[in-house]
Amino acid sequence: MEQKKGFNVAVVGATGAVGQQMIKTLESRDFPISTLTLLSSKRSAGTKVTYKGQEVTVQEATPESFKGIDIALFSAGGGVSKELAPHAVEHGAIVVDNTSAFRMDENVPLVVPEVNQEDLFKHNGIIANPNCSTIQMVVALEPLKAKYGLSKVLVSTYQAVSGSGAAAVEELNSQTKAIINNESFEPKILPVKSDKKHYQIAFNAVPQIDVFTENGFTYEEMKMINETKKIMHDDTLKVAATCVRIPVATGHSESVYFELNDNNVTVADIKEILKSAPGVVLQDDPENQIYPMPANCVGLNDTFVGRIRKDLDVENGFHMWVVSDNLLKGAAWNSVQIAESLVELGIVK
Amino acid sequence: MEQKKGFNVAVVGATGAVGQQMIKTLESRDFPISTLTLLSSKRSAGTKVTYKGQEVTVQEATPESFKGIDIALFSAGGGVSKELAPHAVEHGAIVVDNTSAFRMDENVPLVVPEVNQEDLFKHNGIIANPNCSTIQMVVALEPLKAKYGLSKVLVSTYQAVSGSGAAAVEELNSQTKAIINNESFEPKILPVKSDKKHYQIAFNAVPQIDVFTENGFTYEEMKMINETKKIMHDDTLKVAATCVRIPVATGHSESVYFELNDNNVTVADIKEILKSAPGVVLQDDPENQIYPMPANCVGLNDTFVGRIRKDLDVENGFHMWVVSDNLLKGAAWNSVQIAESLVELGIVK
Repeated sequence: MEQKKGFNVAVVGATGAVGQQMIKTLESRDFPISTLTLLSSKRSAGTKVTYKGQEVTVQEATPESFKGIDIALFSAGGGVSKELAPHAVEHGAIVVDNTSAFRMDENVPLVVPEVNQEDLFKHNGIIANPNCSTIQMVVALEPLKAKYGLSKVLVSTYQAVSGSGAAAVEELNSQTKAIINNESFEPKILPVKSDKKHYQIAFNAVPQIDVFTENGFTYEEMKMINETKKIMHDDTLKVAATCVRIPVATGHSESVYFELNDNNVTVADIKEILKSAPGVVLQDDPENQIYPMPANCVGLNDTFVGRIRKDLDVENGFHMWVVSDNLLKGAAWNSVQIAESLVELGIVK
Repeated sequence: MEQKKGFNVAVVGATGAVGQQMIKTLESRDFPISTLTLLSSKRSAGTKVTYKGQEVTVQEATPESFKGIDIALFSAGGGVSKELAPHAVEHGAIVVDNTSAFRMDENVPLVVPEVNQEDLFKHNGIIANPNCSTIQMVVALEPLKAKYGLSKVLVSTYQAVSGSGAAAVEELNSQTKAIINNESFEPKILPVKSDKKHYQIAFNAVPQIDVFTENGFTYEEMKMINETKKIMHDDTLKVAATCVRIPVATGHSESVYFELNDNNVTVADIKEILKSAPGVVLQDDPENQIYPMPANCVGLNDTFVGRIRKDLDVENGFHMWVVSDNLLKGAAWNSVQIAESLVELGIVK
């Protein structure tokens, strides 16, 4: 029997919402680890985290932290990635970066394993994990694109607050309590902590995720547009997005309209393809009120698809509803899945 | 000085969420009323309601309740409207019906005063008030259609639970409390009280409003599609909708994509038109994080529009975000506004 090789793995941002999920996912997937190095800011260093029954102490991330590391999973903000990822690469590690720092860099593959796993071979030390809302959408669209071709995507999102981190979840919870108890509260984090104004998220819908760009779209919307084209290798694909935060802790939902390059596709054809598509769970039975909902997807790695309908006017147009755990497939699981692919494909040895 | 004429007004469903808003709106608009008759089911009869400082006792609605009534505002469910509206008409009343009972009847005008007030002249005793989610969308689209022509509308909704009545709001509140206190709960009302299954709405997004039709769209979605075409007098208009319930008590939001019949329209042109459009308040200043949100629209009659963007691929395509109080412009205010129009246009005398 072949001895399972173990790798030296580092998690940067180990105390954050996504970092915690990464550690849990490495554990639940039984990822072949020789040593696990948990890194964070100076402020969080010293925190103890349990991995497979053993206590691991989180250390401050420095350029020297990456000596001997094979795979480094980054999720500590774009600034940390920009500063430390090059040092990790210098030390011979392959970086899987969950921030937006390198996503649109043409030398950095942007990977969703179900969609473009082969792009991993083109890495130059860094592999980018796409934006959470992009990942679940392309997982659902790719098998349809592969079979029929895809020309247009229009998405409106219903995004959970955990995409903004643990403090945003705490803000949703404390605001909800305040409103229910008729107490006053002061929004401090959402929609964007660094932006000028903060708004109520409890019992509200906020049409701003990330800051605004000059064309009126937010960065989140532009990420969905540009990342989808990059992952799907199609600059001519028409993509538009409206990104909205709703009072859900975890689980992004998306109302997706798309047009295929084939006028003879039926809803049954689409269901048949998605039923066996990698990473997809079809939940589509209107008669029995079966459709995906964020409350049912928490803690699961899959992307759930339902409400598939043929447009009533456009022959090649369809609608669907796509839901996934934004901390898992949208972040931690996709990162660990990239790491697993690196092992499977022999890219990391 | 001309003596202001008063009318004999009846409100059917006076104890319901919309009925209560109708009474408040009649009061705040100082609608010219001689007598106010409040009607309900037998169960709610006897309830006392204050109107302009005076107590009015709600009576059981029967066919004979409408003798001498000039205007009857119905909002007690489709069954009640089907049964009693013809009796009201027989007794000489003009019925403004807020249910879906007569909306698609070709002998019944379906009216949003800002859009098709002139259709009121074609009434045969009954005038239908459109579905809440339809009304706010057509208020925002009509001035653009009037100037440039409109060919296509794709909408994804973020709908408040009060659209399902006061019991649904109570369910949202009690479920929210239960989840926050880590207590168990049993969904009983949403998404559709009469349907087989009921789902959690607190901290969730439910892609079902009303029951499903055979084509996979829900009735709510088909209402938005068919009513929009009827109100805008354009059977060739392409309309598609995905309707979703979110944990907001009051205030529907909509992500609307639309295409105009003119390739040279700018975002500035659209803002200029909407700035002075009837019933519309433009809230669109991304730099200062100004955009509409349901938490800010409660209790207001207007339709709020923001996040207007030109599509990046389609010359004549635009995106916008439309928010309004679903109990007011979506129901009570539009009904009272129809009644005001009937008076202004001399249709009721």
